[in-house]
Amino acid sequence: MRILGIDPGYGIVGYGVIESDGYNLKVIDYGVITTPKEDSLPVRLNIIADCLTELIKSFKPDQIAIEELFYFKNQKTIIPVAEARGVIVHICGKLCDSVYEYTPLQVKQALTGQGRAEKAQIQYMVKTLLGLEKIPKPDDAADALAIAICHSQINYQLNTNKI
Amino acid sequence: MRILGIDPGYGIVGYGVIESDGYNLKVIDYGVITTPKEDSLPVRLNIIADCLTELIKSFKPDQIAIEELFYFKNQKTIIPVAEARGVIVHICGKLCDSVYEYTPLQVKQALTGQGRAEKAQIQYMVKTLLGLEKIPKPDDAADALAIAICHSQINYQLNTNKI
Repeated sequence: MRILGIDPGYGIVGYGVIESDGYNLKVIDYGVITTPKEDSLPVRLNIIADCLTELIKSFKPDQIAIEELFYFKNQKTIIPVAEARGVIVHICGKLCDSVYEYTPLQVKQALTGQGRAEKAQIQYMVKTLLGLEKIPKPDDAADALAIAICHSQINYQLNTNKI
Repeated sequence: MRILGIDPGYGIVGYGVIESDGYNLKVIDYGVITTPKEDSLPVRLNIIADCLTELIKSFKPDQIAIEELFYFKNQKTIIPVAEARGVIVHICGKLCDSVYEYTPLQVKQALTGQGRAEKAQIQYMVKTLLGLEKIPKPDDAADALAIAICHSQINYQLNTNKI
């Protein structure tokens, strides 16, 4: 099963594509979509929509997992980030029947067994579980891979979190 | 000039279409797009995107004005409302070259001359300025007409607020 994990953002959207049979994980690709600060909101949202459409058409994921937002985490930027996430969910829903969402807590628990894990622990687990030599960079791409791994683990246990 | 005003929402999106030569205003149509509570986020965002696309293709507005969000105003629902607004801005930006945004304060000031106007005052001004017999219902449609009127007034004075 091919999974696309997405870490939503406005300036940077992280993505990670993995193959999973529920036990063995293999990384296919990861990276970020970036939008220039000097561009207008409609232009930046359009870049996200177009790049994401391109990614989904290229990698043809069976399932997509998107991180949820919490406003206490990033109050100042919550509106543009949520606006970008709306476009992301919309594009994913149009192009894929199986879209899931996970809270940051679920991602931490799935990867490390506990919800208070530090970013470095999550990144170490991403590297280890995917058999990589280095921690994937930038952080947004590592986060997106973490979301894809979380989905792989939770989805093989019980089919929940579908949106 | 034909203007489409949009009051963004997740459960209800208000829209209002007016013709304006800067002095005379005429209402063309108004109403709401609604999304069922029982549907998933991708389905609801897709309804908004499809209905809005249909509206823009039918009414062919020259310019579109969308209200801005403020999180102090609706903290609890800010995330889904901003997600929906992201989809709205994205669709408008794809289909129209001239998209503008206005704060609730700008809308109040444009219609009543002061920023602390009550909802009823705004609605009365919408009715009066458009020469209607009754206040347009529901409130979201009246709000969308207010945003279109605000754009008509501000845009004929100085070409600002373009996004």
